[in-house]
Amino acid sequence: MKGSIPDTPARQGAVVGIGRTAYSSNSGRTPLGMAVEACRAALSDAGMAASEVDGLATFSLGDSARSEEVAYGLGIEGTSFNLDINGGGNAAVQVVTQAIVAVEAGLCEAALVYRSLNGRSGRRYGRFDESSEEISANQQFGSPHGYMVPAQWFAMWAQRYLQTFNAPEETFGHVAVTFRRHAQNNPHAVSREPLTMEEYLRGRWISKPFRVYDCARETDAAVALLITTRERARDLRQPPIITLGSAEHAGSGGYFDTWPDMTHMYSHHAGPLLWKRTGLAPGDIDVACLYDCFTYTALVTAEDFGFCAKGEGGDFFARGAATYGGDVVINPHGGLLSEGYAHGINHHYEAILQLRGQAGQRQVKDAKLGLVSAGVGNLGGAMIYAAD
Amino acid sequence: MKGSIPDTPARQGAVVGIGRTAYSSNSGRTPLGMAVEACRAALSDAGMAASEVDGLATFSLGDSARSEEVAYGLGIEGTSFNLDINGGGNAAVQVVTQAIVAVEAGLCEAALVYRSLNGRSGRRYGRFDESSEEISANQQFGSPHGYMVPAQWFAMWAQRYLQTFNAPEETFGHVAVTFRRHAQNNPHAVSREPLTMEEYLRGRWISKPFRVYDCARETDAAVALLITTRERARDLRQPPIITLGSAEHAGSGGYFDTWPDMTHMYSHHAGPLLWKRTGLAPGDIDVACLYDCFTYTALVTAEDFGFCAKGEGGDFFARGAATYGGDVVINPHGGLLSEGYAHGINHHYEAILQLRGQAGQRQVKDAKLGLVSAGVGNLGGAMIYAAD
Repeated sequence: MKGSIPDTPARQGAVVGIGRTAYSSNSGRTPLGMAVEACRAALSDAGMAASEVDGLATFSLGDSARSEEVAYGLGIEGTSFNLDINGGGNAAVQVVTQAIVAVEAGLCEAALVYRSLNGRSGRRYGRFDESSEEISANQQFGSPHGYMVPAQWFAMWAQRYLQTFNAPEETFGHVAVTFRRHAQNNPHAVSREPLTMEEYLRGRWISKPFRVYDCARETDAAVALLITTRERARDLRQPPIITLGSAEHAGSGGYFDTWPDMTHMYSHHAGPLLWKRTGLAPGDIDVACLYDCFTYTALVTAEDFGFCAKGEGGDFFARGAATYGGDVVINPHGGLLSEGYAHGINHHYEAILQLRGQAGQRQVKDAKLGLVSAGVGNLGGAMIYAAD
Repeated sequence: MKGSIPDTPARQGAVVGIGRTAYSSNSGRTPLGMAVEACRAALSDAGMAASEVDGLATFSLGDSARSEEVAYGLGIEGTSFNLDINGGGNAAVQVVTQAIVAVEAGLCEAALVYRSLNGRSGRRYGRFDESSEEISANQQFGSPHGYMVPAQWFAMWAQRYLQTFNAPEETFGHVAVTFRRHAQNNPHAVSREPLTMEEYLRGRWISKPFRVYDCARETDAAVALLITTRERARDLRQPPIITLGSAEHAGSGGYFDTWPDMTHMYSHHAGPLLWKRTGLAPGDIDVACLYDCFTYTALVTAEDFGFCAKGEGGDFFARGAATYGGDVVINPHGGLLSEGYAHGINHHYEAILQLRGQAGQRQVKDAKLGLVSAGVGNLGGAMIYAAD
């Protein structure tokens, strides 16, 4: 590509603005309206005019707001980078990576990355919606048995994990309890009431081994990030947060729910690739926002990324290694489990906030490096953010 | 991104392999099976093993083959770049651009870009499929009036064009006749029978001002491109075709079918951007493969890209400026109108073939630079290929 070779590191991509709506269980609004609000907030945060934006990127599955409609709502005449990825949570890192690469390659100068969904009052991921769902080739074998929604798929993998490591039923509970404790310092979180292990264990079954507290809080929400070059960032309002690298993995096997060893996920491959590309190690990371559509997801990926050894995730969370004063603070905002299921873009929001030192009561001290992951089964990726 | 700055031009992206299935009206096969065949053909063309592929990109709307399934069919263990763009013809250039940028940024080393669809025997774009179609926010205003399929939308724009320039009814016919003549030298084309202007004018109406010959030939087809670095290309079987630049435009207005002046399309913006980015001019281009879902599309974009003046497209095609011996050879393969609707990836295939000098009877003499476009309404883009 002409322009794909940055002249200087000044062309390096940086996140310069973040914005979001309130998170709720019934927004009473359209995903389009919420997307525009979140994008405006990100622009305002950065101190950039909408007219400067020439890129928009999102991902869609179910409820969504099309980028041309969002551009119109923002008063943008047109864009030269306009990406809509066909995907769910697996795309929440990829969409940011693609926008950064687009900026660095000169395909655009300033891009808004957003996700907007009425995840509770509209299309709910926790339910099968026969009017809008497409049964994939692979799902045709599970659907006749009623095996149709994420809580069931992830439960199958989680059960395999528990059996392989002969892990107690508190294992995933440590994740839920840790993130809920974090959320208590997050006024934006949907679930802030205290959660003890006893309450976790009394939680109603959703799909064994998942109790209600193992599942993300479906939420109506929109979140946006504004990305531009490091050079342009100099004149903006907030300190830019740069990216040091990104790694994705898509396992083959016909679909995201088929891979050889369900005690790990996509992160088993994306993790080592990320460390190789960045020259960093898990011990370098101050804050990790790990995709946690279910407790299992955060626990297994924490292992895969090397924050602890395989099979030791339960103990890792139990002994406080994933919280303040531990090895790394995982999901200081409470994650999808407690802050709300803003489909993973809220994890980027939190990482940026922490690296700027703007996380208030839940600030991780001297946070310099943040990891954000997003993935479902054998599809997903992670990236590393750094204060400039 | 770490690795996003190519060390040397050696990291520049190049198309090194092309592959496709037969084009037919009833493949009797799955899009997955066809995608795998086309990808294998591209690998074989390049002389690269599937095990070296670590990227897959496609776009989907209706009939499709998921990249994880294609990877599985190819025997690929996993990939580090896996992009599925939510889009139709508008994405047929973007998907290639994104794959090239991914290679240049070091997100992967070798990527297959493909599109597979049973466009005639499966999900037909010419018809409204209520079982799988989503009515967009914008379409809700047209659908009650039966304004639901591309032939109707494009017809509205085409009518505006004809009225604005007081153009005769032969105007779009010159495009159909030119491309059909080209297709007669293309054994792969679905429609090769001769077409005169008299026959064109006797063609049955699809949606005025479109007759049957104004509409792309719905086709069952798969096409694949293999992209890697220029350096890796050195040891492969075919001469690499590099890219000199790419430009996209997404107009805002709520949807792809709403923009101020329907006598032009996305190319009104993407064209000037492409020339600016590459430092080239329309007169430099030897071969142009212009997206031609309808005759109108090719005619209007030929004007927008500057191959002729606005409003003079009919005359431009009529006087032979768009064929051998003219200013530029447009769609030497016959385009979507005569070769078949392989959703625009076949345009890349043809451009590569021409720039390699492998187009046989329809070879454009000394072809050095090729332009490929893809777009629908105010969404789309174009890129320029060059022999290395």
